[in-house]
Amino acid sequence: MTTERPPDSAPGMHTLTAGRGLLYGGDYNPEQWPEEVWAEDVELMKAAGVNFATVGVFSWARIEPEPGARDFGWLDRVLDLLAGAGVAVDLATPTAAPPPWLGHRWPETLPVDESGRRLWYGSRNQFCPSSPVYRERALALVADLADRYAGHPALAMWHVGNEYGQVCHCDLAAAAFRDWLRARYGDLAALNEAWGTTFWSQAYSDWAEIITPRRAPYLVNPTQKLDFWRFCSDEQLDCFREQRDLLRDRTPGVPVTTNFMGLFKPVDYWAWAAEEDVVSNDHYPDPADPLHPVRTALVHDLSRSLAGGRPWLLMEQSPSAVNWRPHNLPKPAGQLRLESLQAVARGADGSAYFQWRASRFGAERFHAAMVPHAGPHTELHAAVRAHGAELRRLAPVAGTTVPARVAMVHDWPSWWALEEDARPSDRLLLTDQLLAYYRPLWERGVTVDLVPPSADLTGRDLVVVPNLYLVADADAAALTEYVRGGGTLLVGPFSAVADPSGHVRTGRFPAPLREVLGASGEEWRPAPDGPVHCRWTGGAGFTATTWTELLRAEGAEEVAAFTGGDLAGRPAVLRHRLGEGTAWYVATLPEPAAMAELAARVLADAGVAGVLPGLPAGVEAVRRGPVLFLLNHGAEPARVPIPEPAEDLLTGATAEDAVTLAPRGAVALRAVP
Amino acid sequence: MTTERPPDSAPGMHTLTAGRGLLYGGDYNPEQWPEEVWAEDVELMKAAGVNFATVGVFSWARIEPEPGARDFGWLDRVLDLLAGAGVAVDLATPTAAPPPWLGHRWPETLPVDESGRRLWYGSRNQFCPSSPVYRERALALVADLADRYAGHPALAMWHVGNEYGQVCHCDLAAAAFRDWLRARYGDLAALNEAWGTTFWSQAYSDWAEIITPRRAPYLVNPTQKLDFWRFCSDEQLDCFREQRDLLRDRTPGVPVTTNFMGLFKPVDYWAWAAEEDVVSNDHYPDPADPLHPVRTALVHDLSRSLAGGRPWLLMEQSPSAVNWRPHNLPKPAGQLRLESLQAVARGADGSAYFQWRASRFGAERFHAAMVPHAGPHTELHAAVRAHGAELRRLAPVAGTTVPARVAMVHDWPSWWALEEDARPSDRLLLTDQLLAYYRPLWERGVTVDLVPPSADLTGRDLVVVPNLYLVADADAAALTEYVRGGGTLLVGPFSAVADPSGHVRTGRFPAPLREVLGASGEEWRPAPDGPVHCRWTGGAGFTATTWTELLRAEGAEEVAAFTGGDLAGRPAVLRHRLGEGTAWYVATLPEPAAMAELAARVLADAGVAGVLPGLPAGVEAVRRGPVLFLLNHGAEPARVPIPEPAEDLLTGATAEDAVTLAPRGAVALRAVP
Amino acid sequence: MTTERPPDSAPGMHTLTAGRGLLYGGDYNPEQWPEEVWAEDVELMKAAGVNFATVGVFSWARIEPEPGARDFGWLDRVLDLLAGAGVAVDLATPTAAPPPWLGHRWPETLPVDESGRRLWYGSRNQFCPSSPVYRERALALVADLADRYAGHPALAMWHVGNEYGQVCHCDLAAAAFRDWLRARYGDLAALNEAWGTTFWSQAYSDWAEIITPRRAPYLVNPTQKLDFWRFCSDEQLDCFREQRDLLRDRTPGVPVTTNFMGLFKPVDYWAWAAEEDVVSNDHYPDPADPLHPVRTALVHDLSRSLAGGRPWLLMEQSPSAVNWRPHNLPKPAGQLRLESLQAVARGADGSAYFQWRASRFGAERFHAAMVPHAGPHTELHAAVRAHGAELRRLAPVAGTTVPARVAMVHDWPSWWALEEDARPSDRLLLTDQLLAYYRPLWERGVTVDLVPPSADLTGRDLVVVPNLYLVADADAAALTEYVRGGGTLLVGPFSAVADPSGHVRTGRFPAPLREVLGASGEEWRPAPDGPVHCRWTGGAGFTATTWTELLRAEGAEEVAAFTGGDLAGRPAVLRHRLGEGTAWYVATLPEPAAMAELAARVLADAGVAGVLPGLPAGVEAVRRGPVLFLLNHGAEPARVPIPEPAEDLLTGATAEDAVTLAPRGAVALRAVP
Repeated sequence: MTTERPPDSAPGMHTLTAGRGLLYGGDYNPEQWPEEVWAEDVELMKAAGVNFATVGVFSWARIEPEPGARDFGWLDRVLDLLAGAGVAVDLATPTAAPPPWLGHRWPETLPVDESGRRLWYGSRNQFCPSSPVYRERALALVADLADRYAGHPALAMWHVGNEYGQVCHCDLAAAAFRDWLRARYGDLAALNEAWGTTFWSQAYSDWAEIITPRRAPYLVNPTQKLDFWRFCSDEQLDCFREQRDLLRDRTPGVPVTTNFMGLFKPVDYWAWAAEEDVVSNDHYPDPADPLHPVRTALVHDLSRSLAGGRPWLLMEQSPSAVNWRPHNLPKPAGQLRLESLQAVARGADGSAYFQWRASRFGAERFHAAMVPHAGPHTELHAAVRAHGAELRRLAPVAGTTVPARVAMVHDWPSWWALEEDARPSDRLLLTDQLLAYYRPLWERGVTVDLVPPSADLTGRDLVVVPNLYLVADADAAALTEYVRGGGTLLVGPFSAVADPSGHVRTGRFPAPLREVLGASGEEWRPAPDGPVHCRWTGGAGFTATTWTELLRAEGAEEVAAFTGGDLAGRPAVLRHRLGEGTAWYVATLPEPAAMAELAARVLADAGVAGVLPGLPAGVEAVRRGPVLFLLNHGAEPARVPIPEPAEDLLTGATAEDAVTLAPRGAVALRAVP
Repeated sequence: MTTERPPDSAPGMHTLTAGRGLLYGGDYNPEQWPEEVWAEDVELMKAAGVNFATVGVFSWARIEPEPGARDFGWLDRVLDLLAGAGVAVDLATPTAAPPPWLGHRWPETLPVDESGRRLWYGSRNQFCPSSPVYRERALALVADLADRYAGHPALAMWHVGNEYGQVCHCDLAAAAFRDWLRARYGDLAALNEAWGTTFWSQAYSDWAEIITPRRAPYLVNPTQKLDFWRFCSDEQLDCFREQRDLLRDRTPGVPVTTNFMGLFKPVDYWAWAAEEDVVSNDHYPDPADPLHPVRTALVHDLSRSLAGGRPWLLMEQSPSAVNWRPHNLPKPAGQLRLESLQAVARGADGSAYFQWRASRFGAERFHAAMVPHAGPHTELHAAVRAHGAELRRLAPVAGTTVPARVAMVHDWPSWWALEEDARPSDRLLLTDQLLAYYRPLWERGVTVDLVPPSADLTGRDLVVVPNLYLVADADAAALTEYVRGGGTLLVGPFSAVADPSGHVRTGRFPAPLREVLGASGEEWRPAPDGPVHCRWTGGAGFTATTWTELLRAEGAEEVAAFTGGDLAGRPAVLRHRLGEGTAWYVATLPEPAAMAELAARVLADAGVAGVLPGLPAGVEAVRRGPVLFLLNHGAEPARVPIPEPAEDLLTGATAEDAVTLAPRGAVALRAVP
Repeated sequence: MTTERPPDSAPGMHTLTAGRGLLYGGDYNPEQWPEEVWAEDVELMKAAGVNFATVGVFSWARIEPEPGARDFGWLDRVLDLLAGAGVAVDLATPTAAPPPWLGHRWPETLPVDESGRRLWYGSRNQFCPSSPVYRERALALVADLADRYAGHPALAMWHVGNEYGQVCHCDLAAAAFRDWLRARYGDLAALNEAWGTTFWSQAYSDWAEIITPRRAPYLVNPTQKLDFWRFCSDEQLDCFREQRDLLRDRTPGVPVTTNFMGLFKPVDYWAWAAEEDVVSNDHYPDPADPLHPVRTALVHDLSRSLAGGRPWLLMEQSPSAVNWRPHNLPKPAGQLRLESLQAVARGADGSAYFQWRASRFGAERFHAAMVPHAGPHTELHAAVRAHGAELRRLAPVAGTTVPARVAMVHDWPSWWALEEDARPSDRLLLTDQLLAYYRPLWERGVTVDLVPPSADLTGRDLVVVPNLYLVADADAAALTEYVRGGGTLLVGPFSAVADPSGHVRTGRFPAPLREVLGASGEEWRPAPDGPVHCRWTGGAGFTATTWTELLRAEGAEEVAAFTGGDLAGRPAVLRHRLGEGTAWYVATLPEPAAMAELAARVLADAGVAGVLPGLPAGVEAVRRGPVLFLLNHGAEPARVPIPEPAEDLLTGATAEDAVTLAPRGAVALRAVP
């Protein structure tokens, strides 16, 4: 629904799960270990039910130890071993981490930051995506890799690069940026117009003058920065695409992916997802964040949506702690299983980990792994094995979909533009807003798809726009038509402020949504520290924070009003009937309880209910295909009434009218016929 | 009194107000808008009573789209339109923001930070003040501008550059720094002596070795840094002066200004003000700061003092929120008017805004404007219009002065030296000290002039020195003579510590003020976190924070003493009769209530009273010419007794013995004859 | 015991104290003052009992004002004056601060930071330790200095450089790093193995590719960083050694030192101490830190241990405030004396200050000095004089030793490796752990030696290992043998994790100590914010923070267990009998009271008692030679029972069965025969 689907005959997730059921496994880096360990690895994999491994992500230097050399022998042996063990290999193009010789011989391949400082090798990702030398050498290696392993029985998927997100400000990057801008704008006049260069005397008189938004004495042109976000995403997509095209050409039928990172700001995944055969995602919830189950659900829904509703792959998660936060909490008992099931419940057809065996050295030596330093006779590895066995029982869900009547709009360019410098408040952040609107839906078991602003909204009962700072005229018009046609729309503050160039739209705001919302405003008013007091019309009071707007109703009814300060008596929440539908606008950041109340009212308007009424706090409910998943994220047992007798696929146990979930427990219920 | 006055026949603020009354208007950037908007602009200006506009501040690239080109046509049309509408134009030399082509073709014009990183275009201010290419091209443009508009009926003032404050560490800057040092010191021996280069083996053997204070492994020579502050201020003053001289030459009679920024650390405005025909200032109070009305009064008093007591111009303020703080609160209803009146009350003959019409693009698109994005039919614009009308009724104050019997010493080099690295405490900050001493005077309606340390103190009843870390011998002697001659002097801690080279004066401190204070000390003692306990001699206790000193009286009486810790029983506040006068010394940072008590005592010594007794909290009272301004900064109404029947110029209402001010209300009372 | 002792006939601390008793004095920088001040200086020194001065630390530019010149006349006069006053001179090689001409003419001598930014002169320390130009010019100057003053009667010691700790990332440094690596690893294969370059594709194909760990896009190879720490320490040791060798050659019999900085991370003082004739240390406790007396005791014990148990020299301390913290508290009355006596009590044969006379200029103008700006008639200088006189009465302790039955292991490479990026928690810090284990011993008057992990443990009753993240096999085996032979061992968490290359040891942890501890673990578990609840087996509860581990006993008894969360019921503290001895393991960070309880139990196992039972809180007790020092760090008087009649050397007073210490008071008790 959200991206164009390739034909069903094309390679995809189904290519991988066919005959295998759900995938289970992780990143496997045998080059870090002597060969005798490899044999133990495949035995342990088999015992753990592992049927999937990503291999070679960081093997460039191993394969090409010096420029032009090739050493594939070790990889041949690894793939043979894995094939023998029935492990499907997601073979990586190792282009995310060039060997030291590349930076040493061709320093221009090394990235440069906005201050002009070159970043060196000794880590990973040290390449400029616009460097011809980097791209040529990467592609040459990929070609040889493809030729070598085309037809190898282990080869099940290609994994291009890793977690794309590089930025570079070198002169090569600037030249590529100019090319991109030339393609976007055609002539300098159009660029000057879009960038608003009459402001602060920034008019360009020659293409050659244009640079990336490097460090300057004061605030940098926001449209220049917005276009640089766009360029960086596109430039890396070019890197991806040129590898993908080569791979598709040499190994037709083998799906190609690259691993995303969920709500990762630098890359516009809507554009990328359309170029992938399989949407795969890396996600590392923070156990110290009390909202991590909600945040994770949101990210998984994004992955499913990027995949157009079809199954996706959880490519990386940690079996316990990560190592890159300042203080890394482990996962308590049960959490490994619970989080993996959460992904499957939300549409994943595979659950994979970084990584199989814990590294002894390197910057990730303290990242948890499926086989920890302490070895297989550990609680962690026991949980890995138990979960592997359990996943096989979920084979019936493979290939099934997760229905959602609610769509939430998310747009990368709007995110980039919203969070530019020198805005009314740097406390209004996109991911906070997404979470604030997502959370009450999650609590009620209402499943949500994410969609880009240009999505076809047909069939949606509710469209939620937590924030859409930047919007195209056509997309605003589509939202209006959606309501007129009977849809319910919920819009958060500071939306529809800017046009696609990031120019503030003049007139009362939100100008292009004024008609659908039946209201308009004249000043955004960041709020003093402390609570903002509000009251539901004819109802109770509630608090909000951070943000208010000076609005007036123009046909809308006032659902809540501010009760204190300069805005006392002015609308805080508005509801407008237009045509067959209803539009809501929220002009502040209500506290969570008020967001829950708001969600209840809006869902009632939309006629949408959750998959199960009366969910206890902390219990997540989601329906996938024939299965109802109930996931208890709390540390206490939870009793959940169920509408009909069902069997828990995970245990085979049956329940009549309720199930009791252990702390961090989960069930996968299928109705008993 | 504070700077040398030019002859009254010279161009000045009176040139602008003659026949116009108080100025009202703002920055006008028509180059950001199509010409059809210009027509609407002048109509709106007329309706709002706007009679003043600053034009062209950032128009370099518009006028000179490529090197050597000139495009004045648009500006001709703008100035003709404004002249037709009776709007006086403050025409800017657009040299604060060179076009991209300058930095692209001559990268050496771009500034370099202390770490050696070049700062790029894409913002503004990207020039090295010592770059010959920049200065030549700027001057050539200014010459053509002056020739073009000499005699144009709209031309009322020149506005050179904008908010000077650039710093550069490039090799060109280093060479200019050396020239400046050669002029200051004559020979290397004198420089080595002044810089104390026997410390840490820093002796220079050749002028060529000297650089700006670039990033070093550890603390940099403090006198090198002090001289670099001096140089940067002077070097930019040279930039200003060379434009001013050209303008005076080509358009005699047209006053020249550049906009200051109040208590802006990088530039020594005492030196600059003497070079200006009109002192103009930009000031942006933070609505989130509860002390902003006091801070603003202090800054306005500084502007008036920089203007030698004559009228000045509030060149930039915001009609509501700014955009460059992290979280930007709007101004509540009434605040626009109140703040504008506060400036007029404190001597401004004009109240102008940044900016006329809100930008749609660029880094300041979220800065409030007189015409907001939402257009003229808004509460904000209504307030703009109402205030424009009201200001015309204040014409009687134009040209009048604000009498002040109290002088507060403020010195930029002392500020620079005080806040250098590696001092006893980085918690003792100059602006905090200014405010701490200014606040109780403001609360009592005592008007204050700011003066440089070299000022003639004749006629002052009280001289307050919140901090004067660095002092010349002659200035210290003048303070002593002032007291001997009958004056009252109040000196704050850590004053008179250093000589003009920043060398600590040896002997008991404050050595050059020891006689006048009748006391001396031997150790500065930053205090542990938490309160420092003190007691008025024979009176109540109070607290202080942050700073103490180990002192002994040498003729002074102990007014307050420390009561706890190692200094228990030692003096905290001292009072000394010398000749006909009295000197006070404060060796700590008393809490605000204690500062109020101190002020009461010191004012009693000086025989100074506020303009009105019994002011309610939050009400500011200041007398300007025949008018008594009362400004209620509180959110509650305030009743203020008045000594005689009076008429409020703003409304025409009369009052007998008291006025009641609405929240954020103000009156301009003139005695009824 | 901790470093190899030179023969007793070699120059050492005794060379300095012979005929002088304890040293007293400080840094003397006469080049900052006119010669008339010098005469006053020596008179004041004599009056204050000063018999020691460090001269010339920052005099390079004074001696060599331009390349190749020499000006020794002033220094001749200074040394003659001091010799005449009986002041022993610690003559510095002024190589820590090259003159500006060095950096100006040879910019390649200037250091470069990890981001590639060159650091300039104008401060001090601006040299790359690997620069041949710097080293040649430094050595040439040292040669002339040695020749000039060989045999001068004032010359008592050489002070090489100052507070070594420079780091450089320039190409010269990279080349030197490669040489060092070649020497360490022999061939590239060994380096690739040690650095784990199979991780993230970092394999080096040519030595020329290797650089210092410069700024990179993400986490840098931890072994590369560990080796860079090692290299930097060694490279500077080379700088020291080449000067020392020259000085030993030209002035045999004159001891050579360089001043350490206690627990200073960048330099491995175990390696350095072995190269010094005298161990000297600079230490600046922070009066704002309530634990500063404990921290200082720990640092002094380290100095004594670096000196192999023989007397050492407190080279720099401040008589009151320093100037380089953000907020610098002075020392209250009595603190100067107390801190100096603390050093003597813990083995110092001299107490010296930075500096003699307060500078008027330069970055340290606000650092307290023995002669303050206010001059000699000050409380501070009076305390300096009183203490000088008093120290002479402590002559009986000169040359005596401080017995310690407890050894605490400290290792620089382990520190470097522990605190690398991307570890389980950045809240587990080495110095915190040292202090946590040292503090309860200090509170009980138990004296501790610090030892490197390779130390001979014979004769120790207790060995404490607060943290030894990185350990060699042999050192782990030695700890095991030590216990087996009857020793008591106490090991803190996250110890013995890595091998000397920083590779995590596989198997249950701590792998090489598993046998001796009788326990092993499988997961390090950083704890959520807030308390971790524990309970002594059969006893009371206590709390811990930050860190836990998932352990099991394998022969050890559980002394305390976790009582909450996922680890409830698992061991938190374990005790294991092995052979004749006992080993303890602590898997969390217990609160101080629990650390005290733990210390009591472990000391009981070890049969170790403090020098005096029943010490009041805040009173430090330490025995040196025939003298028992009691130091009251509290602000209240403290009564301390003593076991036998004694005389206070400081006052001559005698006591029968108890002494009462004034606030910040101290006694030096010698038994009355």
